[in-house]
Amino acid sequence: MFLAKVVGSVWATKKTDNLNNLKFLVVHPLNLKKDPLTDVVIVADVLGAGVGETVICAYGHAARKAILPDNPASLSIEAAVVAIVDKIDLDSSKIAE
Amino acid sequence: MFLAKVVGSVWATKKTDNLNNLKFLVVHPLNLKKDPLTDVVIVADVLGAGVGETVICAYGHAARKAILPDNPASLSIEAAVVAIVDKIDLDSSKIAE
Amino acid sequence: MFLAKVVGSVWATKKTDNLNNLKFLVVHPLNLKKDPLTDVVIVADVLGAGVGETVICAYGHAARKAILPDNPASLSIEAAVVAIVDKIDLDSSKIAE
Amino acid sequence: MFLAKVVGSVWATKKTDNLNNLKFLVVHPLNLKKDPLTDVVIVADVLGAGVGETVICAYGHAARKAILPDNPASLSIEAAVVAIVDKIDLDSSKIAE
Amino acid sequence: MFLAKVVGSVWATKKTDNLNNLKFLVVHPLNLKKDPLTDVVIVADVLGAGVGETVICAYGHAARKAILPDNPASLSIEAAVVAIVDKIDLDSSKIAE
Repeated sequence: MFLAKVVGSVWATKKTDNLNNLKFLVVHPLNLKKDPLTDVVIVADVLGAGVGETVICAYGHAARKAILPDNPASLSIEAAVVAIVDKIDLDSSKIAE
Repeated sequence: MFLAKVVGSVWATKKTDNLNNLKFLVVHPLNLKKDPLTDVVIVADVLGAGVGETVICAYGHAARKAILPDNPASLSIEAAVVAIVDKIDLDSSKIAE
Repeated sequence: MFLAKVVGSVWATKKTDNLNNLKFLVVHPLNLKKDPLTDVVIVADVLGAGVGETVICAYGHAARKAILPDNPASLSIEAAVVAIVDKIDLDSSKIAE
Repeated sequence: MFLAKVVGSVWATKKTDNLNNLKFLVVHPLNLKKDPLTDVVIVADVLGAGVGETVICAYGHAARKAILPDNPASLSIEAAVVAIVDKIDLDSSKIAE
Repeated sequence: MFLAKVVGSVWATKKTDNLNNLKFLVVHPLNLKKDPLTDVVIVADVLGAGVGETVICAYGHAARKAILPDNPASLSIEAAVVAIVDKIDLDSSKIAE
């Protein structure tokens, strides 16, 4: 899974039927580089993560299982928020945000 | 999933049988770097995305489920448009296009 | 899926049993960078793609479904040619080759 | 799979139900570059890996099979520790830590 | 799949049960860059690949199918040697080793 910071939302009217009523967030995966974060991933979310929060995201089956536990294979998504981070305990260096 | 800009189409006569009648788009994944976009991904599309539009694309089972919901495993694709973007609400920085 | 240029073949006598009689190509994924192409991917091919041709390749289940449609899960491959490109229509920039 | 060094833990109260009672580690994938390690991956762990230890991590089904062997598809994870490394025998160069 | 050079082995006593008796190699994925190879991937091997040999490796289901053909889903691995390379025929440039 990857750590990411929520930076926004995406709106789409025209989409695959099985995505109706799903919320899509724009997130920046976090790393330890000094450069500003530039990667962008779109993730589905049912936990209610807000802009500025740090989240754990998962890909593939794991993402579908988080969004629709009873019928994951029915979804056309492959990335989702699986947890909202409270605290990160690091040995040394700090995760760049 | 990833955000991308549609920049063109690909045509192929000789292809895997299960890809007949499918449309393939050339897209550039979007990021926040200042450099021109250089990555190229080929995605299947049944939503009718046009050149210049911003789309959300998904990989793997999610892509097949978007293109052929009743029999996704029959397809030899692993990337597809799942939504055409209307609006992106971002906290701060703007997605590079 | 990704666009790639076929640059060669790989030969292997000692291999997983389920790969016998399969042809493996060496391909360079295409992008828009000015630098020479340096990435190398090995893909299975049953379409007869030749050196110098541009192809669409797919990963995972999609690749196995292209090589052995009746029993994809029996194969130890995860990348394959799914189409040989005739023409690429691009809005502006040209795909680097 | 990839080699990684354990550098910390992540705590999350609000998360997908199927992740309750799972431990999540922050790890740095190892490579041979001279630059400090900057990539961050979040992995589930049931082997008890501690900060500073070198581990082998796996993605996808392999990760879920390591964490919950009897029902891997019930988990919303896609990365996990599958082994704690005792020794690495290398021909020449040393893995950067 | 990817081409790689075998550079060593990894030893681990504490590991997921289903990995007992499996051999894990350290490999460098090959590319055409002039820089020394720095990426490290851990792959399972039952073909007997030795240090210095060039191999084709596969990810995911393909890897598990190569290591345990009769029950691939029982394994917590996602990368494996699927062939030991005899010869690479390239149109022009030579694969960096």
